[in-house]
Amino acid sequence: MSAATPLPGKLIGVGVGPGDPELMTLKALRALREADVIAHFAKAGHPSYSRAIIERHLRAGIVELSLAYPVTTELPKCSAAYRDALGDFYDRAATDVARHLEASRVVAVICEGDPLFYGSYMHLHARLAARFPTEIVAGVTGMSGCWSAAGIPIAQGDDVFTVLPATLPEGELTRRLSDADAVVVMKVGRHLPKLRRVLERSGRLRCALYVERGTTTGEKMIPLAAKTDNDAPYFAVVLVPGWQERPRDKP
Amino acid sequence: MSAATPLPGKLIGVGVGPGDPELMTLKALRALREADVIAHFAKAGHPSYSRAIIERHLRAGIVELSLAYPVTTELPKCSAAYRDALGDFYDRAATDVARHLEASRVVAVICEGDPLFYGSYMHLHARLAARFPTEIVAGVTGMSGCWSAAGIPIAQGDDVFTVLPATLPEGELTRRLSDADAVVVMKVGRHLPKLRRVLERSGRLRCALYVERGTTTGEKMIPLAAKTDNDAPYFAVVLVPGWQERPRDKP
Repeated sequence: MSAATPLPGKLIGVGVGPGDPELMTLKALRALREADVIAHFAKAGHPSYSRAIIERHLRAGIVELSLAYPVTTELPKCSAAYRDALGDFYDRAATDVARHLEASRVVAVICEGDPLFYGSYMHLHARLAARFPTEIVAGVTGMSGCWSAAGIPIAQGDDVFTVLPATLPEGELTRRLSDADAVVVMKVGRHLPKLRRVLERSGRLRCALYVERGTTTGEKMIPLAAKTDNDAPYFAVVLVPGWQERPRDKP
Repeated sequence: MSAATPLPGKLIGVGVGPGDPELMTLKALRALREADVIAHFAKAGHPSYSRAIIERHLRAGIVELSLAYPVTTELPKCSAAYRDALGDFYDRAATDVARHLEASRVVAVICEGDPLFYGSYMHLHARLAARFPTEIVAGVTGMSGCWSAAGIPIAQGDDVFTVLPATLPEGELTRRLSDADAVVVMKVGRHLPKLRRVLERSGRLRCALYVERGTTTGEKMIPLAAKTDNDAPYFAVVLVPGWQERPRDKP
């Protein structure tokens, strides 16, 4: 062989599922085995959720690249300063990943849920996909994990299914909740009181289920109407099932 | 041991993913290994898609239960006769499954995609969950498989994400398409001309991607604006990505 330009590396966005390590796919497992570098996002100073899911499969001596979100608690989420801080962070993360790709390494970025569905990996993908070969390993989403853990049929037939961020204004949440058959509300956190009002107003509080960390050992699940406090982490979801005309169980 | 009543069996809805056999989860694989009976839906006279996905993992001599949809092509989909024919079919399928559960067997119903997201399994679950222990193994949905195969970031940040059946009336499709950031249109089939008009009217035709059997060997993918024919199977999807303000690739 002549001293040709080395092959470029490959960027793989690997969905590792909603939390239960068994809900990882065979393809994700293979990607972890074949990667030269495993990259994962985490809050600065905190362990990575996605790394915890795949920890048992990490090869001894594998190179890890930790991508630590900057601390931005002092910045309002709608401010330009917040957007700039995050944009700068994703730029730096993409540069760190690119360094490995330029050295012909295969970098697996592990992602909770599915890589292209509301995931941080997308920020790397958007910055690198034109320069390097990429591959996506689809994953079980967090919401699938939640309705499966709850055993709740979420959508059927000609249902319209909608994912709403709880960050939306109250009026818009109400309108959209009334306009869909099945709804998953994400990013619940401090928006829980608002969400409860919205669900009550649209007559759907009685069928709403609150789920925290579905499929993990820390799973919590309670009908929202029975939840008396307003404690909710950012990643909690509320499920509002569709399929209203379903046949009832006949015990 | 005394001659106690035998333990009841267990019904497991097992998501086997969008088509690529490697996109099955470790948990699905275990469920297949532990089940006494593997049940699968198929059109009468056709092989089962979900069975093809897991075929390599079928144990020799495992009991299989084929649940064959009745032929209903002569009935309009909105007719009571159609609904009755399907309802009767699901009743009979539930009876067939219950016979195994009553004999203390574990029945794994394999489902393309995720069992509780627009899946036929839900009809069994609704009829049997009050009488027998059930478990759901979440799966990678068909739509995740499609946007991953296409490498298209579908939704990010505060995007509203909506799944629309192409069966909806044209006016309603137009309104809902204009009202969501990211959209997946399912059940495209003979509704493709209508869908094309709707996308053109809402200014979103140029970013719409047509995908058939994503992640399988029969995968077809083409920008909808470049598709010149109206051939589309029932299970084709059209992806309309959100995340409009995403950073552009910088080659």
